[in-house]
Amino acid sequence: MRDFSADTSALALNTATLGHNLDGYGAGWPLERVIDACAAHGFGSIVFWQREIGTRAVEIGNRVRAAGLDVAGLCRTPYLVGRDRPDTWLEETRASIEMAAALGAPVLTVVSGGTEPGTKGVAETQKILAERLSQVVEHAAACNVRLAVEPLNPMFGGNRTCLMTVQDAVKLCDLIGHDALGIAVDVYHVWWDTALKDACAKAGSRLVGFHLCDWLENTTDMLLDRGMMGDGVADLKAIRRAVEGAGYSGPCEVEIFSRKTWWEMDPETVLRVISERFRSVC
Amino acid sequence: MRDFSADTSALALNTATLGHNLDGYGAGWPLERVIDACAAHGFGSIVFWQREIGTRAVEIGNRVRAAGLDVAGLCRTPYLVGRDRPDTWLEETRASIEMAAALGAPVLTVVSGGTEPGTKGVAETQKILAERLSQVVEHAAACNVRLAVEPLNPMFGGNRTCLMTVQDAVKLCDLIGHDALGIAVDVYHVWWDTALKDACAKAGSRLVGFHLCDWLENTTDMLLDRGMMGDGVADLKAIRRAVEGAGYSGPCEVEIFSRKTWWEMDPETVLRVISERFRSVC
Repeated sequence: MRDFSADTSALALNTATLGHNLDGYGAGWPLERVIDACAAHGFGSIVFWQREIGTRAVEIGNRVRAAGLDVAGLCRTPYLVGRDRPDTWLEETRASIEMAAALGAPVLTVVSGGTEPGTKGVAETQKILAERLSQVVEHAAACNVRLAVEPLNPMFGGNRTCLMTVQDAVKLCDLIGHDALGIAVDVYHVWWDTALKDACAKAGSRLVGFHLCDWLENTTDMLLDRGMMGDGVADLKAIRRAVEGAGYSGPCEVEIFSRKTWWEMDPETVLRVISERFRSVC
Repeated sequence: MRDFSADTSALALNTATLGHNLDGYGAGWPLERVIDACAAHGFGSIVFWQREIGTRAVEIGNRVRAAGLDVAGLCRTPYLVGRDRPDTWLEETRASIEMAAALGAPVLTVVSGGTEPGTKGVAETQKILAERLSQVVEHAAACNVRLAVEPLNPMFGGNRTCLMTVQDAVKLCDLIGHDALGIAVDVYHVWWDTALKDACAKAGSRLVGFHLCDWLENTTDMLLDRGMMGDGVADLKAIRRAVEGAGYSGPCEVEIFSRKTWWEMDPETVLRVISERFRSVC
């Protein structure tokens, strides 16, 4: 077993944790400053969002590596199913795969989108999702990028996801059967699932992402009230054991959407607390 | 199979659907008027909340039966676990069992409460819940009342529930192994669960409640934005088949918390729409 007690190199920062570096949230830092601060705080890698990258993918990727870090991933494809799927989903998905490749990001996150219009529940939508993923997975493989489908908390059913559990994601991967398709496990979405450990064991080498934050006991906003690790009720150590026990050895990506708390703070403080909490409670 | 196409006698009204008959929501009707309106609209039974009943349990129960209806259930015990569990949970739970018996309600709903202070996740809390239910289940049996544990949508984890799936509830019932303990299946909480049909089959005769509403595609409030049957994305017919296919033959209880839509409407309209939707989309 790796000993992370004095080592935060497994830590990845998802830039959303600093309010996407946007003016109005956090400090509105340019990406270069985020990269250097991550390096200074001992992080090993960074996960970006498409809208931050624009046409600078190669430049930003090189800048990250020059700072001694890796790009761990890119967020994310457009919705592939549901009412909010763009008509241009196929071109947009291919473009996001290419952006990940240009950045040097090994993983591109997929949030599926919600229930397909004209259908009910999630089963039919999951089948349509499988068909659409099949149309892009070869391109991902050719670009050396793995697609990571991310099950979301069931409260995001309807308009954001048709995958609510790791078990559902494993079945989807089985249906498609392609190495370039994997699964991201985010504690915010799956902390409550008593079948999680078994599902992770089944996922095995398909686990390509692990996202950290915490579920606050009194969550006040579905989207933007995620907790810092240790401030909530998720059993972070047990979940990490389940993921790493199943063979995952990639980064631990901290992704905290927190409009009223962490996005209001100085990014230096946020990065310091993440590093401390990673060592003490994860 | 029963044919409900022209028959709404399986319908139960959960009075929360009319804004709990409170002033400020719906019409603030007295219970007697709610009872008569349910009878006029062809409902077969009613489910009350403790705070509506006060010390009138026997009187209200008799009034319901005089109108040709049954009392289908009572909401609900105090939280048995979690930070918001009252110190007096044992006395309060015994009192709610006795109120159900006095009303002639065969079922008393149990919402567990959240994660126990000092613990993480749900597994440990589920064990404590089992111990506490064991302390009251004999009293329920003696009163001829069945306790219905109700799994809640995982978004209510932390402060409201430690049971998120019917599968978790089945395991809890297995652990206690007492006929007076059963399970309520509410479509709002479980519509997304691809393992639901199997879990209901396992639950079998332990299914003692079935709650109807719908999951709106764009749910704007965790608590008070439930949809009318047919307005959302839950596969109501499939869920009902899963529940009734597992042997459930009790009432279909309509429970819609909807502050901005249905609680603002005339109760006569709400009852009429429920009756129509029950026949057309459930």
